[in-house]
Amino acid sequence: MKKKVGVLLSGCGVYDGSEIHEAVLTLLFLDRAGAEIVCMAPDMDQPDVINHLDMQPMAEKRNVLVESARIARGNIRDLAKVSASDIDGLILPGGFGAAKNLSDFAFKGPQATVHPEVKRLLLEMHAASKPIGAICIAPATLVCALGSKHPEVTIGADAGTAAGIETMGGKHHICGVDSIHVDTKNRIVTTPAYMLGPSIRDVAGGIEKLVNQVVSMC
Amino acid sequence: MKKKVGVLLSGCGVYDGSEIHEAVLTLLFLDRAGAEIVCMAPDMDQPDVINHLDMQPMAEKRNVLVESARIARGNIRDLAKVSASDIDGLILPGGFGAAKNLSDFAFKGPQATVHPEVKRLLLEMHAASKPIGAICIAPATLVCALGSKHPEVTIGADAGTAAGIETMGGKHHICGVDSIHVDTKNRIVTTPAYMLGPSIRDVAGGIEKLVNQVVSMC
Repeated sequence: MKKKVGVLLSGCGVYDGSEIHEAVLTLLFLDRAGAEIVCMAPDMDQPDVINHLDMQPMAEKRNVLVESARIARGNIRDLAKVSASDIDGLILPGGFGAAKNLSDFAFKGPQATVHPEVKRLLLEMHAASKPIGAICIAPATLVCALGSKHPEVTIGADAGTAAGIETMGGKHHICGVDSIHVDTKNRIVTTPAYMLGPSIRDVAGGIEKLVNQVVSMC
Repeated sequence: MKKKVGVLLSGCGVYDGSEIHEAVLTLLFLDRAGAEIVCMAPDMDQPDVINHLDMQPMAEKRNVLVESARIARGNIRDLAKVSASDIDGLILPGGFGAAKNLSDFAFKGPQATVHPEVKRLLLEMHAASKPIGAICIAPATLVCALGSKHPEVTIGADAGTAAGIETMGGKHHICGVDSIHVDTKNRIVTTPAYMLGPSIRDVAGGIEKLVNQVVSMC
């Protein structure tokens, strides 16, 4: 039986959605590890759409599930229809979407709230002792949902974000881009990716380790 | 001196832009090969925008350069401002954008025309004997531009597309997803990628070979 691993996307593009490199590398390493991939995203309007050429907000509306489908080549499920019983593990790629759409941490810092369906699935996964991987800024949203469990995570070395994580009940560990931090008690695996970068090959090193760790814990 | 390799993008999403996995894998393997990456795309409106969830056209306008910037994390140049003297090699990822935006092969088959800036750069690269890689459906656009040179390419095994390529002056070779075809005379490297698939790890095998071949020919 193949292990089924969910990939929770948050749009398509680093400044308003999933960081595309992180998402694709997650899919690559899951496929190489022999896992069955279950892409999902919340069916919601993005709070903003950013022009990735000039970095300015655009006067249009985009839907997180519809844009995430670009990364998933159309093979994606509405998060509201996925439960922890459907998957053996879950991975959240980063990008601002993980902190603008899955939660509003990018706007509100430690006063953030998590999208209700994201919070539901994360709580279900934790309750079932199924592993969760979170990449780049996604650990902030993870801690926002699971702060009462005091998860140990890394987002690299950014002091402000690390302080926000600790305010929400988490414990932050400094970590290099090609490494992972494993919270064995909470079964949470994190890696800094483009919180540190600088380059796609650097990010790939940490994500490959994260994916293999999550798959091994499934 | 690092070898500078251009990556010509055509939007962001398999059905109306660059195939995202192919584009990201190209960036990954170029970075691993030690190349300097120069992303570029034409500044033009897309002829269509496809909802990747339900595959229906959407009533909105998107710009190829702006959407391509999502894959490039903002680090991208207007194709019109890039010449062959700026780069040592060029790679075109696939996706329908390569045959809807870079040319109109997806709409017109062998009667297609190539975007003038795309044609200019491809002719410059060929004249300078600099290597060109083309992935998935992108070889069709390449042959449309360079048909008079009778390039030898692969798009996998699709008989209709192969016939169109031969009508435009090219020679088609059947090829597996984890392999490449090299036209040593024209210095052109091609691989089928998602023209065959089925999976991202399969596609990655051929793209890694293509990237390494192009870099070695720079």
